[in-house]
Amino acid sequence: MSDTLRFGVIGAGFMGKAHALAIHSVGAVFGLDARPVADMIATSSDASAARAAKRLGFARHTGDWRKLVSDPDLDVVTVCAPLPHREMVLEAIAHGKHVLCEKPLATTTDEAMEMQAAAEAAGVVAMVGFNYPKTPASQFARALIADGTLGEIVSFRGVHVEDFLADPDLPIDWRMKRDQAGEAGALGDLGSHCIGMSHWLLGPALEVMAETRIIHRERPEAETGRRVAVENDDQAELLVRFANGVTGSLYVSRVATGHKMGLSYEVVGTEGTLVFDQERLSELQLYLRSDDARLSGFRRVPIGPSHPDYGDFCPAPGHGTGYNDTVTVEIRDLIAAITGGKPDLWPNFADAVYVHRVIDAALTSVKTGRWAAVD
Amino acid sequence: MSDTLRFGVIGAGFMGKAHALAIHSVGAVFGLDARPVADMIATSSDASAARAAKRLGFARHTGDWRKLVSDPDLDVVTVCAPLPHREMVLEAIAHGKHVLCEKPLATTTDEAMEMQAAAEAAGVVAMVGFNYPKTPASQFARALIADGTLGEIVSFRGVHVEDFLADPDLPIDWRMKRDQAGEAGALGDLGSHCIGMSHWLLGPALEVMAETRIIHRERPEAETGRRVAVENDDQAELLVRFANGVTGSLYVSRVATGHKMGLSYEVVGTEGTLVFDQERLSELQLYLRSDDARLSGFRRVPIGPSHPDYGDFCPAPGHGTGYNDTVTVEIRDLIAAITGGKPDLWPNFADAVYVHRVIDAALTSVKTGRWAAVD
Amino acid sequence: MSDTLRFGVIGAGFMGKAHALAIHSVGAVFGLDARPVADMIATSSDASAARAAKRLGFARHTGDWRKLVSDPDLDVVTVCAPLPHREMVLEAIAHGKHVLCEKPLATTTDEAMEMQAAAEAAGVVAMVGFNYPKTPASQFARALIADGTLGEIVSFRGVHVEDFLADPDLPIDWRMKRDQAGEAGALGDLGSHCIGMSHWLLGPALEVMAETRIIHRERPEAETGRRVAVENDDQAELLVRFANGVTGSLYVSRVATGHKMGLSYEVVGTEGTLVFDQERLSELQLYLRSDDARLSGFRRVPIGPSHPDYGDFCPAPGHGTGYNDTVTVEIRDLIAAITGGKPDLWPNFADAVYVHRVIDAALTSVKTGRWAAVD
Amino acid sequence: MSDTLRFGVIGAGFMGKAHALAIHSVGAVFGLDARPVADMIATSSDASAARAAKRLGFARHTGDWRKLVSDPDLDVVTVCAPLPHREMVLEAIAHGKHVLCEKPLATTTDEAMEMQAAAEAAGVVAMVGFNYPKTPASQFARALIADGTLGEIVSFRGVHVEDFLADPDLPIDWRMKRDQAGEAGALGDLGSHCIGMSHWLLGPALEVMAETRIIHRERPEAETGRRVAVENDDQAELLVRFANGVTGSLYVSRVATGHKMGLSYEVVGTEGTLVFDQERLSELQLYLRSDDARLSGFRRVPIGPSHPDYGDFCPAPGHGTGYNDTVTVEIRDLIAAITGGKPDLWPNFADAVYVHRVIDAALTSVKTGRWAAVD
Repeated sequence: MSDTLRFGVIGAGFMGKAHALAIHSVGAVFGLDARPVADMIATSSDASAARAAKRLGFARHTGDWRKLVSDPDLDVVTVCAPLPHREMVLEAIAHGKHVLCEKPLATTTDEAMEMQAAAEAAGVVAMVGFNYPKTPASQFARALIADGTLGEIVSFRGVHVEDFLADPDLPIDWRMKRDQAGEAGALGDLGSHCIGMSHWLLGPALEVMAETRIIHRERPEAETGRRVAVENDDQAELLVRFANGVTGSLYVSRVATGHKMGLSYEVVGTEGTLVFDQERLSELQLYLRSDDARLSGFRRVPIGPSHPDYGDFCPAPGHGTGYNDTVTVEIRDLIAAITGGKPDLWPNFADAVYVHRVIDAALTSVKTGRWAAVD
Repeated sequence: MSDTLRFGVIGAGFMGKAHALAIHSVGAVFGLDARPVADMIATSSDASAARAAKRLGFARHTGDWRKLVSDPDLDVVTVCAPLPHREMVLEAIAHGKHVLCEKPLATTTDEAMEMQAAAEAAGVVAMVGFNYPKTPASQFARALIADGTLGEIVSFRGVHVEDFLADPDLPIDWRMKRDQAGEAGALGDLGSHCIGMSHWLLGPALEVMAETRIIHRERPEAETGRRVAVENDDQAELLVRFANGVTGSLYVSRVATGHKMGLSYEVVGTEGTLVFDQERLSELQLYLRSDDARLSGFRRVPIGPSHPDYGDFCPAPGHGTGYNDTVTVEIRDLIAAITGGKPDLWPNFADAVYVHRVIDAALTSVKTGRWAAVD
Repeated sequence: MSDTLRFGVIGAGFMGKAHALAIHSVGAVFGLDARPVADMIATSSDASAARAAKRLGFARHTGDWRKLVSDPDLDVVTVCAPLPHREMVLEAIAHGKHVLCEKPLATTTDEAMEMQAAAEAAGVVAMVGFNYPKTPASQFARALIADGTLGEIVSFRGVHVEDFLADPDLPIDWRMKRDQAGEAGALGDLGSHCIGMSHWLLGPALEVMAETRIIHRERPEAETGRRVAVENDDQAELLVRFANGVTGSLYVSRVATGHKMGLSYEVVGTEGTLVFDQERLSELQLYLRSDDARLSGFRRVPIGPSHPDYGDFCPAPGHGTGYNDTVTVEIRDLIAAITGGKPDLWPNFADAVYVHRVIDAALTSVKTGRWAAVD
Repeated sequence: MSDTLRFGVIGAGFMGKAHALAIHSVGAVFGLDARPVADMIATSSDASAARAAKRLGFARHTGDWRKLVSDPDLDVVTVCAPLPHREMVLEAIAHGKHVLCEKPLATTTDEAMEMQAAAEAAGVVAMVGFNYPKTPASQFARALIADGTLGEIVSFRGVHVEDFLADPDLPIDWRMKRDQAGEAGALGDLGSHCIGMSHWLLGPALEVMAETRIIHRERPEAETGRRVAVENDDQAELLVRFANGVTGSLYVSRVATGHKMGLSYEVVGTEGTLVFDQERLSELQLYLRSDDARLSGFRRVPIGPSHPDYGDFCPAPGHGTGYNDTVTVEIRDLIAAITGGKPDLWPNFADAVYVHRVIDAALTSVKTGRWAAVD
């Protein structure tokens, strides 16, 4: 392999920019052998692509994503366009590109499975963009679970709440329409993060029980002001049975007033408990049962160089990493998988399929009023 | 009615002492017309009762609770003895006493209903000891829900976690045996607080879906060291559908490492959200959607004289009330109900029956794997 | 000594009520041999005293404090009246009463010394009402300092900030007039708590350097609306050199917007650091340098039965004590000193004289612009 | 001016890497017209410079900083080498380079003034690396002060505490030796951040009063183990009088157990108060006196796109920026000053001279025991 990896990015919005920043930074942060190059960006027109390339620092640009996925000089394609992703991903794979696709990977589980099968058949690295578990704190949380510091895990409470749709007068958009976003609303959009995080920390679930609800049943159309029906859930609550015997719950909402990036979790073990909140991504609350009773309490652990990956960003503790740093770790993991050192890439397309299946099971449970198996 | 109310207290443990303190304090705190008198205490022997009377400041004592409930000079009987409470309560009612019975009121719902019926037939005030909702903060929370400050309530998350049984080597006791504590373990012991709090804040539930689990399946007998089976749940997770349309979840555990008095809740409304944690009982987190975006965030509201009942304890804000003050408010509510000014006493025996029914429904749900109606 | 201690209380305001509550509760809380009796209360008129006695539960009352301090049946007099306290205290001592006087003990240091001398000559117990150090948390903090858990103490930062005078339109009152409150404003009123707390934790100061400021220089008279000068400081900042070599700072303000009961401190030692905030009086933040770096952070220690005095209020951790419980501990200490078991009563009149001297030194420092010795 | 700015960086340690990351990112983050290029890096040898260039993504490298500062293709030189900086800075200026020099700019105030004079004479942009005020939160804090949201500012409390020297067995290094680090220890190293922050928020100080202390008076030499004297302060406490009439205090320590990046401040105003802590750099605590008393409390404001610069990093609130993002803002400010749009660059060399003068005044105050003027 050459010592460069040429990246093509489809999309120049929130995530396209985040990918660009990570591609620019990751080599210097981690001292990588294979240096990523921000080579080409695609948007919906040549003009906007030209502007995006200049702004985001890409050498080349195109208004046609098909040119990007078929460009012979590119090694990796990242898909940051709105749904649907299927065609872009399949075409990229068909041209032998490694792929990082933003979540949700697909609108349906079948689609996700199709993409997974294609990637496996082609032997390319295929990653999905659940980047929140990449914080040093959540990597550390996983380590504390895995190394037994918390003892046997007995309970998990996962939450992902935001309030970007709390205002009932906000117009309807694609997220709230079944044909575009799928049957699951907050359950799909935010629940996928929450399910993904639980998978990262605890492994797969076997069964779920769910309740969903649309809070603001109608919203105005942006163009007409006419009130139309919201077609999928604003919030969802789940009970979960994990394969390792842990039970727990998930709660997601896109209308939870006051919460901005409320991805949080509590993991209770027989020897300790940890609590994490993405709004304070550079610390972890940790309780150890072995502490002397008189001196015991939840410790607010500021993340530092003794925790995973932090030291590559900053040698001094407590200085904090940010959202974009999380994407940088994600791109590092992608590159590591491509260059061969990390065969156990998480989250790959199989992990994305798993997330889709949990959502399917939750929707089934809502209809039947009983536990539904995750296939 | 005379201007004194003579109290007899059965039991001199944790709650007997708390009742004694409240009886001594409540008149001065609230400037009551009817002054309570700590008249008689009953424990299991004359000798221990004599010590308790001296220590806790009662004029009279007895080693036989039947003498207490039948004493003609007593107006009110509070039951702080271990389960079973049934006979004590029914006898006290039969003698025309007003009754405050510590939770759980009964071992079964039928028993609780029997007591409720007896109290109603006798026309006495009959209260059950869910005192946590009596904090100024939780009274204020209820007011914010009721007065519309939070808009329409859309979600509730209630938690009651403690770790007093987190140590797997602690010996088994009555709480873990079905014949003494009932079929529900943490679900009954801590869940009753959590269910009671949700009832106080939001009213009754219609249906629940539950999952329970015994974490430490065997514990040593204190006397023999022989390991015997724990017979009821260490933790429980519930989904709840309230009559007012709100959905939510409850989580209770007696083995949740690190939590000491972890009764907490979050109430999400369309206009605001509030969060309360009993470990910080003198503050409330409050978010208001109407705040300017640039200046908005959860407000940590320190409780003060502008909140319910606080000013009677202290005229200056932020000084804090404690656990025993909560019991003082409870006794004040009891006295107010007796002297006639508060016909809407909460929680009365009917409320205790409701809590039992929710627990029954949860146990049913565990068996059927589906939603169970609260009768 | 008889097994009762008869208390007379002068004043029925904030602190008079708090003393009444403590007198009613302390016997039951701590199981005392000598049971305190709320015998007599004095206010400024017979009518108001009668109302106060009924409300606060005193057997007798008077509109003339001289009758109270000279009453032969009383053992203890507590002074909760507004300044000046001198005559009440000296008369009570002259009649052989033990005395608890609310802070500030005196308007001047000379007065405080006169009272101290009188109490020592009479051999009575003479206590001043700095009750904040009586929380379980601050008792525990002192223990952690004394037992070496924190190593050598190297820095202290004490704060007492409130905002009860933040509104510039509030009328002037006695606190802001030199002839009534003395030359020190917030420095005297709140600084005395802060200085007292530092004395409790670290012992005496040798030298101070201070800066004071009047923020709202004029306020309206309540009756006339005429704006008149505020005569003493709204805030003060001090540097302090303690006798044990520790250096530190104090900051006090009565206009610090947002703070309600902002008495807080941080004690830094070579082996650990602790942080306390009176607004969260039932917890302590504690860092131990010996913790593994990867797992280290400030522990939020919830106060429980393994900490001083808490278990007498409640056997279960994390339930919380409140402001009035703090006064109950104070009265317990007073009784213990009277009945002989606690010769090292803190804070006695000598400690109050110390606080006055620190304030004097601070005022001197403000005038000279240099360090001033605490005589 | 061309549309690129060629950067040369001297040093490849903590700050050299941070500058590299910022140079790589800043164009894409802010969509700059003038794109910075990471052109050349200098370290102490050709070999290490080659490794650094490869690792950090520089096109060229040199083992001789003189070659870098005199390279005709470079537009900007950033100095990230250890002290002394004087010669590097003066040479770079002499060659017409714009300069960003890491703090401390100089070992003495005279040196700093010499550099300031040289930069002004040459007409180059000359910035010093106080990057902490560049967080969105601290930019927002400054705006809230400037726009009157907090009313008249009445008090400031600034803190910068870390514990990197809390272990008394850590060997002595250059920071603790006067000939290398100067007379001021923590006062210079951390105090400069704290003084700089206060300057950013409130403007200049007129007078200071200080107390310093060496806590660990001797430390082992790394090579010999021989214990030698620490020559400058481990902690310092200051009182400060600002030109705008505000009074306040500063506290800095390099041995404050438990604190990792404890740069924090509280700004009290007549209409509101704000509190910031660098360990939680993506939030601000804000109290507004205008809030209804019943609903008032400190708001935890999560930083989002309605706050300065955040939206360029992430369009969604609460996701968080990190330490390196702060340096990116710094480089953006530097570029803006160079390209002409930002004549009021903060902090320039004059601001660095100011910081030196405050430290000088503090040292004078320690010697005289009285207030010292900031010249």
